[in-house]
Amino acid sequence: MTNNISQGLNCPLPIDNYATVVLAHGGGGKLTHQLIDQVFKKHFSNPDLDLMHDGAMVHVEAGRIALSTDSYVVSPIIFPGGNIGELAVNGTVNDIAMCGAQPKYLSASFIIEEGLSVAELEIIVKAMSLAAKTSGVSIVTGDTKVVPRGKADKLFITTAGVGAIPDGRNIHPSTITVGDAIIISGTIADHGMAIMSVREGLEFESEIVSDTLALNSLVEEMYRVSPNIHFLRDPTRGGVASTLNEIAASAKKGIRLFEHSIPVKENVRSACEILGFDPLYVANEGKLIAIVSQSDTEKILAAMRNHPSGKDSAVIGQVTNDHASVVVLQTAIGGERVVEMISGEQLPRIC
Amino acid sequence: MTNNISQGLNCPLPIDNYATVVLAHGGGGKLTHQLIDQVFKKHFSNPDLDLMHDGAMVHVEAGRIALSTDSYVVSPIIFPGGNIGELAVNGTVNDIAMCGAQPKYLSASFIIEEGLSVAELEIIVKAMSLAAKTSGVSIVTGDTKVVPRGKADKLFITTAGVGAIPDGRNIHPSTITVGDAIIISGTIADHGMAIMSVREGLEFESEIVSDTLALNSLVEEMYRVSPNIHFLRDPTRGGVASTLNEIAASAKKGIRLFEHSIPVKENVRSACEILGFDPLYVANEGKLIAIVSQSDTEKILAAMRNHPSGKDSAVIGQVTNDHASVVVLQTAIGGERVVEMISGEQLPRIC
Repeated sequence: MTNNISQGLNCPLPIDNYATVVLAHGGGGKLTHQLIDQVFKKHFSNPDLDLMHDGAMVHVEAGRIALSTDSYVVSPIIFPGGNIGELAVNGTVNDIAMCGAQPKYLSASFIIEEGLSVAELEIIVKAMSLAAKTSGVSIVTGDTKVVPRGKADKLFITTAGVGAIPDGRNIHPSTITVGDAIIISGTIADHGMAIMSVREGLEFESEIVSDTLALNSLVEEMYRVSPNIHFLRDPTRGGVASTLNEIAASAKKGIRLFEHSIPVKENVRSACEILGFDPLYVANEGKLIAIVSQSDTEKILAAMRNHPSGKDSAVIGQVTNDHASVVVLQTAIGGERVVEMISGEQLPRIC
Repeated sequence: MTNNISQGLNCPLPIDNYATVVLAHGGGGKLTHQLIDQVFKKHFSNPDLDLMHDGAMVHVEAGRIALSTDSYVVSPIIFPGGNIGELAVNGTVNDIAMCGAQPKYLSASFIIEEGLSVAELEIIVKAMSLAAKTSGVSIVTGDTKVVPRGKADKLFITTAGVGAIPDGRNIHPSTITVGDAIIISGTIADHGMAIMSVREGLEFESEIVSDTLALNSLVEEMYRVSPNIHFLRDPTRGGVASTLNEIAASAKKGIRLFEHSIPVKENVRSACEILGFDPLYVANEGKLIAIVSQSDTEKILAAMRNHPSGKDSAVIGQVTNDHASVVVLQTAIGGERVVEMISGEQLPRIC
């Protein structure tokens, strides 16, 4: 233990001497600087961030940019396959990539409940740093607030980001055309069932892990082989079903899904059955839905399958003229049913 | 009351039938869309937002941009002179303006505690919309999460924003020069004491109100008369004292403050005395500190005083060569004392 008195108030204890975050770490003074220097800057350090101004001053080339944000409130904050930190980086990277943009800069804002373990916070910050490096973005600015015990739940992270949209890319519902193929970049429902398995104490022979992953490099690979990508969306909260309903509604087209072609891992399917979930409604955090022109489907699918983040990609449906704004599932046994948007809350605090 | 059964599940109740936000409003499905359409889009509507993609696709002049974010956790969420919503808009607008940038686009992310009154949420969203219009920014993208009762405190809002930095503007500590004047744009400690007066139940003849205000138009007016603005910062958490300490440290220059020239409202000064606060450490939400070249000080000060957001502007100090990284206050009675950065947490959840 350090001698508190000889140090005096002017020289507060190093962060290592705090096992947990205290209210004063959010006061905007010395302790806040200490937390920032010894946890956030230590892992995020880059010239733009290190200037430590109220905002970051950065360069963009293109005229069109994408701006996106998400708040992460997932519980537990550390789960099989990831934690809230990498989820917050990958999620916003993906939202930017789904605009056809190349993510460049992120902001990260932390709302910390007094009492959060500093060690746990550092694990999460480290994971954010690694996720940012992996996806090629810089965390250039941020904010830290601390609220009293019982006024938040451990840690909420809000990231926002910007990316440049290269010329010639136009993700817009109006470009969706009858006959377009609907591609999913891999197995569905992994993230949601990883969280639910932990919460429910389920154990399987092979652990269900979150699919949290940045998709920007996969998107670049897709654009490398074809410009005819009409729409991109990552099916997070509400799952594939809700995302496709949103797309069908905004494009005013019908969507037909083929149940037998939707990839679901065996352990995820079992967990869904045990807990009574339909995988179509369960959140994903490392998958994208692409709506692409019929003529380029094979080319794009091949490129996706060759990419490590898209090896299980599959065509799962088609845009139709039959039933505007409605998603219909052709079931494995040959029947048909309407797939509604999720109504209420299936899995609170999944992301 | 609407007939729940005849409507069926496909057509949930309009938001007016919910007095409070429920968990399902955060599920990413129909109820989320309803909350977005009937509260957020109703007030924020603009073509970029209305596209309702995962991110907004917007235009910026190619070149330098500023990116900033802040989370707002102020309690109470509605206070004399404002609420958490306009604070969240003005705060991020100001952080961007303090980079010398012209704020253009904001994102807004809401973490709502189950049970928040929908009416209260709408008051706050309306205030955000008005604040955005007043400062000339568009809220183009956002996110909504709902957490169970007791896992947050009513409402947290995180805004992020981007702005374009016109050529020739260079806010950087390295440009701060010995002899530069330190200007404050008005009376200090208003926001912090407005919050504290409510919390402590203090009453004065004239109510203390928050100074929450967007400063981007004042900054433009300053640049109109002079390019020689070396540094800008809004003294929020930690107050003028902490902000000047940060500036002194990053510029490696001394700062001398003149106590008698620091403007403080009479009721604010009384509240500080009663509650034992030093106004130099109390948060402001509509004031800026400008560090400007000596030769242009009069010109800039005159322009600020002519602007409605800067009418009480005053020169409160000077950059010196005497004591690198230290802020010294020349007191009204002729003494001198070192003004330290705030150490811990003086006023939790002030912003």
